[in-house]
Amino acid sequence: MQPVTAKPLYIRMHADDNVAIVANRGGLHPGAEFACGLRLIEQVPQGHKVALAGIGEGEAIRRYGEVIGHAAAPIARGSWVKESLVQMPDAPSFDNLPKPNGGAIALPPLEGYTFEGYRNADGSVGTRNILAISTSVQCVAGTVEFALDRIRKELLPKYPNVDDVVAVTHAYGCGVAINAPGAAVPIRTLQNLARNPNFGGEVMIVGLGCEKLQPELLLPEGMSADDEIMRMQDEGLTGFGEIVEDIVQMADARLQVLNRRQRETCPASALVVGMQCGGSDAFSGVTANPALGFAADLLVRAGATVMFSEVTEVRDAIHLLTPRAANQQVADALVREMAWYDRYLAGGEADRSANTTPGNKKGGLSNIVEKAMGSVIKSGTSPIAGVLAPGERVSQKGLIFAATPASDFVCGTLQLASGMTLHVFTTGRGTPYGLAAVPVIKVSTRSELKQRWHDLIDVDAGSIATGEATIQDVGWELFRLMLDVASGRETWAEHWKLTNALALFNPGPVT
Amino acid sequence: MQPVTAKPLYIRMHADDNVAIVANRGGLHPGAEFACGLRLIEQVPQGHKVALAGIGEGEAIRRYGEVIGHAAAPIARGSWVKESLVQMPDAPSFDNLPKPNGGAIALPPLEGYTFEGYRNADGSVGTRNILAISTSVQCVAGTVEFALDRIRKELLPKYPNVDDVVAVTHAYGCGVAINAPGAAVPIRTLQNLARNPNFGGEVMIVGLGCEKLQPELLLPEGMSADDEIMRMQDEGLTGFGEIVEDIVQMADARLQVLNRRQRETCPASALVVGMQCGGSDAFSGVTANPALGFAADLLVRAGATVMFSEVTEVRDAIHLLTPRAANQQVADALVREMAWYDRYLAGGEADRSANTTPGNKKGGLSNIVEKAMGSVIKSGTSPIAGVLAPGERVSQKGLIFAATPASDFVCGTLQLASGMTLHVFTTGRGTPYGLAAVPVIKVSTRSELKQRWHDLIDVDAGSIATGEATIQDVGWELFRLMLDVASGRETWAEHWKLTNALALFNPGPVT
Repeated sequence: MQPVTAKPLYIRMHADDNVAIVANRGGLHPGAEFACGLRLIEQVPQGHKVALAGIGEGEAIRRYGEVIGHAAAPIARGSWVKESLVQMPDAPSFDNLPKPNGGAIALPPLEGYTFEGYRNADGSVGTRNILAISTSVQCVAGTVEFALDRIRKELLPKYPNVDDVVAVTHAYGCGVAINAPGAAVPIRTLQNLARNPNFGGEVMIVGLGCEKLQPELLLPEGMSADDEIMRMQDEGLTGFGEIVEDIVQMADARLQVLNRRQRETCPASALVVGMQCGGSDAFSGVTANPALGFAADLLVRAGATVMFSEVTEVRDAIHLLTPRAANQQVADALVREMAWYDRYLAGGEADRSANTTPGNKKGGLSNIVEKAMGSVIKSGTSPIAGVLAPGERVSQKGLIFAATPASDFVCGTLQLASGMTLHVFTTGRGTPYGLAAVPVIKVSTRSELKQRWHDLIDVDAGSIATGEATIQDVGWELFRLMLDVASGRETWAEHWKLTNALALFNPGPVT
Repeated sequence: MQPVTAKPLYIRMHADDNVAIVANRGGLHPGAEFACGLRLIEQVPQGHKVALAGIGEGEAIRRYGEVIGHAAAPIARGSWVKESLVQMPDAPSFDNLPKPNGGAIALPPLEGYTFEGYRNADGSVGTRNILAISTSVQCVAGTVEFALDRIRKELLPKYPNVDDVVAVTHAYGCGVAINAPGAAVPIRTLQNLARNPNFGGEVMIVGLGCEKLQPELLLPEGMSADDEIMRMQDEGLTGFGEIVEDIVQMADARLQVLNRRQRETCPASALVVGMQCGGSDAFSGVTANPALGFAADLLVRAGATVMFSEVTEVRDAIHLLTPRAANQQVADALVREMAWYDRYLAGGEADRSANTTPGNKKGGLSNIVEKAMGSVIKSGTSPIAGVLAPGERVSQKGLIFAATPASDFVCGTLQLASGMTLHVFTTGRGTPYGLAAVPVIKVSTRSELKQRWHDLIDVDAGSIATGEATIQDVGWELFRLMLDVASGRETWAEHWKLTNALALFNPGPVT
């Protein structure tokens, strides 16, 4: 147990690694000597890599036991392994990937954990009680916001059991190539967003009338267009006042129903947790993501559904995931989604290296390979039970790979569509991320961030780097907090009502 | 002068046309007889086409004097020319297009027209006095909205000369392939949005810190990053309270400056008008767009800048535009933008026929060729002085083709970036469109829409269809209203504070 600013400390992830990251806040100066006797021969910033041994030009640089690059020039023991010294390897080929081989052994069930949730008629369970106003096109967004303001002021106070009313607005719905292959993604995303368990099965859709994405396309099966859809252009509506009043009345009818929902004790298996990291640094794969991975294993053991995502941050670890697939079908689906994304990026003259931000690099991550190794750790060790294409609705328990872009707000939107009812977000650089439809638990990778953003970060995993807590300690803390938050405890993002916009993934063209 | 519901009335656009549209509200029944003696042999809805002569299978169907399709089957005189009967022709080839040939003769100058605007240091003139808070990434949007709420409540009442404070939030900035060729479009759009003349040259940018789109990229030349940019991750900021306070203080300093702006009499030549149509019907090309085209000519004669846009609604009229280009360079630029868009659509396995919505078709427009012919009419008859790629800033007077997608909210966002200070939007089906940064004047193509949406539509052009007003009458009405609105008169969208979200055009991939 030593504070991070005291003795020089590095963190090595695997016995095969020839680099480790400097844990000390503010980094370390030349001459700093680690417990093992290694001395720095130059300044190394916090989170950046030090060479544990000499590495010859072209030789492999290993972290997490994986090759994260090859040395662009000879690297002396004790020197800073700068980004410019790390030549990025090619992405793993899809040929000859390891077969599902029991690489992930099912962990023993975990029983007796519950939360207080809202049971829905379709068997799903919500963590919040929210009315969603779906929209078929951006054209109506301003009008819906106008009505929303009235609904929040005039109606919501009458329905104390309802947490909030949210408008599912977006930039899609018209001026798009609605029959292009890529259009399937945003359309199914909008269809499934309306069915998120936190919305209690109450559906209302506001459309314009002339849009490409006709509102019927968003209607869940078995529901009546006459009851659930209003179109602003309907001839029966005269003037803006009547249009707004119609929306307010539709909302009122649904708020009455939602107000009758009550929290009930539900098994932890009813949770659907979406995991994501954003603003990653070199500690992401050392503290927050391993702790989240441990918590993910606990959730899987408790029978819950847990999703990990972000294709470009998983692509370089595909060879570590196929052996964990529950069966060959799942392994094939992993490859299908990664290969689709490779082609999508190539179509825009980009590749997976377009991931990694200035902040990632400042935080010590040299390239997407290193970032990916730290990112997939949050998937824990469970077998991968299933794979979702972007925006598909989850119907399985266990660990699921929900393919999405790595963009925080796009990934969050797609996980919402997949049915997430609780979001856990790890961050190294810090982001004030929040969503209107589900609680978001934010986890910092370093204690310094939690100290600075004390009223934005919910859990600090930085104590793992200093040895003050173990991965298991923070993992259990996270697991218990998830049950509390699912039961109604407020997150910091909820406290401030911080919400990011929904951002649809539209691989198709606009017209 | 006959009311539209009285005697059967059709509207023929050109002497060569073998079809015309039915003007009567509710359409016409079989047996209806027009003044010329033509009798309908079947029901024809309002705005839909009637055959003025028999058209043999494969023969050209002409409207606006142009071939809008070929008959899929023999069409009898007096019958309904349904969409299924109109086979769409190929798009005009880019080879052998007519050369600039003086096809557009410069109209005589129009002097003496002025408006009361806000002069800026760079020579531009605003029509509103607005503080814009720019953002480099979606991650900060929730925080900026939180601060905006405080700014509107606590600060704005102290600065009566400032009309509003708006947050320029968007779904871009991170999780994107920032070096892909397509990224140039959203980046320059954000750069230029901050420079819109309505924002008075006051710039403030809120960034996160770790994002791909570093906030410096949005800074106009000559401005200091230290003064104009705040980053939420800055180590000097502790807690959400300090972050919000920093944004509020930055806004306060700029509001003090903006509050000193005063309206001054400016020549009409200082206006930058963006034109667009949305929710088009067969009357768009008959009433609202021709009137707007006439007003556009008046603006050009007065020395103003007028932009028309929407590539997919112009593509099929390219052979009508190149002869109007001011010179060969402009003609080449028109082709460059259209060809780029053809390739962009093909990359997504779509083509220009993906334009035309269910509402367009219900309104009588058979295909994109017919829609385009009605759309380009709003460009009037002036020479085309210049061409902008999407999001480029305008620096010329006269009629400009600003290449954008036809999507209403994407086109509006790009015209804002180009420097538009006043927006005119024609609509047949009706949309409650509005923008936060500039006033939007909405023009209906049919009187029935204006009667129903009396408090959303600013000008009715439907009286042109009934003969109650001429194109010139409504054109002058529009021109005068533009000067009034530019001087501060409120539009309906402003009255209700109806604003659509900014929607960036990002042809590049997300990661």
